[in-house]
Amino acid sequence: MILTITPNPAIDVTYHVPGARWGEVNRVETVREAPGGKGVNVARVLRQLGDAVTCTGFLGGETGDRLSALLTGVEQRWVRVPHPTRRTTAIVDTTGVTLFNEPGSPVPASAWDELRSVVCELAGTGDVVTVSGSLPVGTIGDAVAGVVHAARSRGARVVVDTSGPGLRAAARAGATVLKPNRDELREVTGIADVAEAAATLLDDGADAVVASLGEDGVLACARADGRRHAWRARPPRVLAGNPTGAGDAAVAALARALHGDPGPTGTVLAENLADVVALSAAAVLRPVAGEVDVDAYRRMRAAIPVDAVELGVPAGDAGA
Amino acid sequence: MILTITPNPAIDVTYHVPGARWGEVNRVETVREAPGGKGVNVARVLRQLGDAVTCTGFLGGETGDRLSALLTGVEQRWVRVPHPTRRTTAIVDTTGVTLFNEPGSPVPASAWDELRSVVCELAGTGDVVTVSGSLPVGTIGDAVAGVVHAARSRGARVVVDTSGPGLRAAARAGATVLKPNRDELREVTGIADVAEAAATLLDDGADAVVASLGEDGVLACARADGRRHAWRARPPRVLAGNPTGAGDAAVAALARALHGDPGPTGTVLAENLADVVALSAAAVLRPVAGEVDVDAYRRMRAAIPVDAVELGVPAGDAGA
Repeated sequence: MILTITPNPAIDVTYHVPGARWGEVNRVETVREAPGGKGVNVARVLRQLGDAVTCTGFLGGETGDRLSALLTGVEQRWVRVPHPTRRTTAIVDTTGVTLFNEPGSPVPASAWDELRSVVCELAGTGDVVTVSGSLPVGTIGDAVAGVVHAARSRGARVVVDTSGPGLRAAARAGATVLKPNRDELREVTGIADVAEAAATLLDDGADAVVASLGEDGVLACARADGRRHAWRARPPRVLAGNPTGAGDAAVAALARALHGDPGPTGTVLAENLADVVALSAAAVLRPVAGEVDVDAYRRMRAAIPVDAVELGVPAGDAGA
Repeated sequence: MILTITPNPAIDVTYHVPGARWGEVNRVETVREAPGGKGVNVARVLRQLGDAVTCTGFLGGETGDRLSALLTGVEQRWVRVPHPTRRTTAIVDTTGVTLFNEPGSPVPASAWDELRSVVCELAGTGDVVTVSGSLPVGTIGDAVAGVVHAARSRGARVVVDTSGPGLRAAARAGATVLKPNRDELREVTGIADVAEAAATLLDDGADAVVASLGEDGVLACARADGRRHAWRARPPRVLAGNPTGAGDAAVAALARALHGDPGPTGTVLAENLADVVALSAAAVLRPVAGEVDVDAYRRMRAAIPVDAVELGVPAGDAGA
């Protein structure tokens, strides 16, 4: 079973406003609402591929009810919180997209306790838990570490795609795979070189780091036999489309790879990295986050080579 | 009793986004929700002045429930409709305000039937019914005419502040007072001169027209003794502030004037036109539509002269 956690979900509202004008009164032509948040996108991609998936995280208020109603075809086991779930509003104009993201509200510590209970109840050996997206305002890294510990203590593997203190805390709590992008890696480690920054998170305690590099594909690093190993995979060509949701598709690919194979994390990654890049690219081809072009995914994954990368051993790093 | 009708209400969402950038991802700093729609604003102004008021119109879905919960201290008697109540989103930046107005959904003909029943049940001789703002998508003028007829048949007087076919239909149905602004008058009559355009609506069947002219105040025209009469009133000075809601405050002033005085419409208008301009100006002084600066209102109304205006009699207009 795959359990996706979205700590700060949202209703994604899209306003189509041809000829929108800043500083004026604009009439919205069409309004669309979709269940949003990165973990929700992961779940929707998995559902599209036919995988059994359960959504959890924090929901509140009428917007929470609405999100739950919009999220059809997916098992849901949300933790209710006092404040209403936030919205994001995308203004789609003829010239592009402007996004306004509400910050959302803090959640009480008891909600994190309840989330850990849900994880302990639902996740067991062979299961995969994902944690995706921003954290509620005021969340401390310990809260994420607690969820990682809970899942790992039940024998499940954990994929974490967040940023800032939560990312670092997940590494220290022994997450199975971290999936930061280049900026998030630099921000959390202070190191510009992707492989070096990833190595820092391995040293912190993560089994593996899969850094998403946009149109350059991914770099995966893992610990095995007291050494670090790394692999690169790139999409077959630069794809024009919507990059929002590409990272969520990568997390979905990582979750299903780990779910299907109990082998060592590094081996599973190496064997499935083409899949990760292909599913991510297949998300770019769809205009909406949380969806993939399944035919393109199947075509592309056979055409993506995975190359082992030689890593230097940093000084003073005998224990890695 | 004053009954305010809002056919197309909204939840007004305000996003404070310092340094908002078009075409980019923006983090919203604060989110505020308020009950919105012009008739709702009229009711809130009346409540602030201590008048008894009941809100009606069409509400639907969770957003409808939310609007109703946000609208405290006012009697409510909404007609429920199948589609959710719309939202408006205001992006408040350091440089100004950008408004995105959702169009809302059509309402079934049966909802208009029910609204007429509410009017017939609640309104009687001496009462005032107001109809404010845009109409649901797909509404035909007849629907507004039906509401005006219903109120008039019960002996109530009706103030209508809408635009387009609904404004014209309200005139033909014998509304007591129409309150268009300069643009709405021109749009509906094709006549640029305010007094001439207003005369057309009197000829259609309205008792009176109060044209709001922004910082130039108002021009009121009424039929009496087979003749047209007109009055002008201007605010004591040009006021800096928020003009949204000034028209709603004017409607509130018109409603309470008619409610307090059963005399001929023209006479009531002439005697209360300073009040209309003062309350409208007092709304400009408040940052939020639906609120007035009560102290400023009381100070200003004594300082606003009302002048009778001589109107030419258009050719071929013997019956007016």
